[in-house]
Amino acid sequence: MRVTTLHGARDLRIEEHPLPIVSESTDAVVKVVAGGVCGSDLWWYRGLNPLPTRRLMGHEVVGVVETTGSAVTRVKPGDFVVVPFCHADGTCVACRGGVQSACLELGSTVGGQGEYVRVAHADACLFVADPPADDLLLRSLLTLTDVLATGWHAARCAGVAAGRSAVVVGDGAVGLCGVLAASILGADPVIALSGREPRQGLASAFGATQCVGSRGQDAVRTVRRLTEGVGAHAVLECVGTGDAMEAALQMARPGATVGFVGIPHGVELPITEMFRRNVGVRGGIAPVQRYLPHLAEMVLSGRIEPGRVLDREVTLDAVAEGYQAMDTRQAVKVLVRM
Amino acid sequence: MRVTTLHGARDLRIEEHPLPIVSESTDAVVKVVAGGVCGSDLWWYRGLNPLPTRRLMGHEVVGVVETTGSAVTRVKPGDFVVVPFCHADGTCVACRGGVQSACLELGSTVGGQGEYVRVAHADACLFVADPPADDLLLRSLLTLTDVLATGWHAARCAGVAAGRSAVVVGDGAVGLCGVLAASILGADPVIALSGREPRQGLASAFGATQCVGSRGQDAVRTVRRLTEGVGAHAVLECVGTGDAMEAALQMARPGATVGFVGIPHGVELPITEMFRRNVGVRGGIAPVQRYLPHLAEMVLSGRIEPGRVLDREVTLDAVAEGYQAMDTRQAVKVLVRM
Repeated sequence: MRVTTLHGARDLRIEEHPLPIVSESTDAVVKVVAGGVCGSDLWWYRGLNPLPTRRLMGHEVVGVVETTGSAVTRVKPGDFVVVPFCHADGTCVACRGGVQSACLELGSTVGGQGEYVRVAHADACLFVADPPADDLLLRSLLTLTDVLATGWHAARCAGVAAGRSAVVVGDGAVGLCGVLAASILGADPVIALSGREPRQGLASAFGATQCVGSRGQDAVRTVRRLTEGVGAHAVLECVGTGDAMEAALQMARPGATVGFVGIPHGVELPITEMFRRNVGVRGGIAPVQRYLPHLAEMVLSGRIEPGRVLDREVTLDAVAEGYQAMDTRQAVKVLVRM
Repeated sequence: MRVTTLHGARDLRIEEHPLPIVSESTDAVVKVVAGGVCGSDLWWYRGLNPLPTRRLMGHEVVGVVETTGSAVTRVKPGDFVVVPFCHADGTCVACRGGVQSACLELGSTVGGQGEYVRVAHADACLFVADPPADDLLLRSLLTLTDVLATGWHAARCAGVAAGRSAVVVGDGAVGLCGVLAASILGADPVIALSGREPRQGLASAFGATQCVGSRGQDAVRTVRRLTEGVGAHAVLECVGTGDAMEAALQMARPGATVGFVGIPHGVELPITEMFRRNVGVRGGIAPVQRYLPHLAEMVLSGRIEPGRVLDREVTLDAVAEGYQAMDTRQAVKVLVRM
């Protein structure tokens, strides 16, 4: 099968690799209909994560079940499925506690910007839906695999609550989904840190009451001015850099929690300052399976349209153009059509 | 007045200083009946905090109101009072949000191991009680000024919940009060990390279901074994060292939060590991005034006896012996009788 493969910084190739197979009885193999390029893929693309040799890219997939292992009973070949990027068994102590992303038997989607993927714990993991009737719905279903659930996780970790202020650091797809999550959960105001179209427009469409376009200490001052002078009740950190976390902590009011879902790169937490101001941090890899039924219901009913973050589409052959568009912020998020 | 003054590591002197005065109309001056020596005093005593010149010691006080400012109406000279170590105005946005320890007009008790202290925001801050009928009640009231509220804060920050496991790192007075808090809040099991009497006995009396006497990785393994192999639902970090925080994080199960109230000294938070396991940290200076009414009710009704942590009493002249007893762990906590 053909799959996007990274060989070094900005060195993406479409290569022929063996078809993934059902290796455990609980596995399924899914034929990819559409894959996503994730902000976290860019860490690799930009050479900011150490790359051992090469890496099969893509962990966001919607597709059609091709084959299933003998123990799989809930999904069957031909089913249209949403594939959470983490494959949790649904039964271990971490899963039962709602942290499926720390499943003791965790698998994950590999090579989703390609033709086929293997899915572990298929029964526990796959979400079966009707094949989407239109393109926006397809895109929204694709966000369920990672970015919508990740933005939602940021909001939940930050303790977003109705009638209380929330601020979202980061205007990538996850940040924008964080805005949507905060809005759905009733936060008011919902302040998005974004200085440019089309991201500001998307943030507003997703429920942001204000967009702050300044950066650094200017942004901190503006957010504080909008939040009784002391910062927001909940802060969603959706970037992962040291600067973003520093700003997020400064925008949090005493007693608030920063919900962080950006993969930390060069983040040092100022614990004495956190102690002095009673500001906490909480987050991590999103337990997609925990949130998926609820989020899918909102998508399928048309209540939310998170698929709008996917503002560019490429074919597999043109995947490098997609990465480049995200790398240069020309696109918010790219869909790869198989 | 005579007051305990630190001039350098282990250099404590009883000195004559001017009487504190009512300098704001909302102040009161309190004649100290009993002061406490706090674990946080030991950081100074041991020379681990930079000491500019000298420092008046003591922030835990119960006493009798001596004089009040013209705007003070709720307390009057002669009232027996519990003095929270942080003096919050009770009206600012931080106070209204329940984080009185980050009050925008915060004052604090200074020189409480001495004859008199000034209290800012006296009406908002002081808790009036009947003069205690016995010595244990006096001691319990003294714990309300800091350590009981601080242990309670650790439990609340850690999200202690009924029927869920809690582990407490630290067997000083705050840690023991954390055990008491976790137990009152219904945690089960309540695991105390303590290897020695009388601390183990106190932990058990306060509701610990297990005491773990080992240290380091041995303790981590033991706690994990007691908590389904993955760690506790809630972890209370009541020490403040890097080692204690590291152990606390390792004892937390995926999705758990470490509630930390030990003043951080040399703590570096491993954010990538926290991200990977979805373990959060949250805590800081306890908002004593928030918890005081509820905690005082439990003390006054006899439901809890946190004063048992005060297992040594000294006069002001012998305060150095008290510090030495705590420094060498001969005493859990020392009461200074005026």
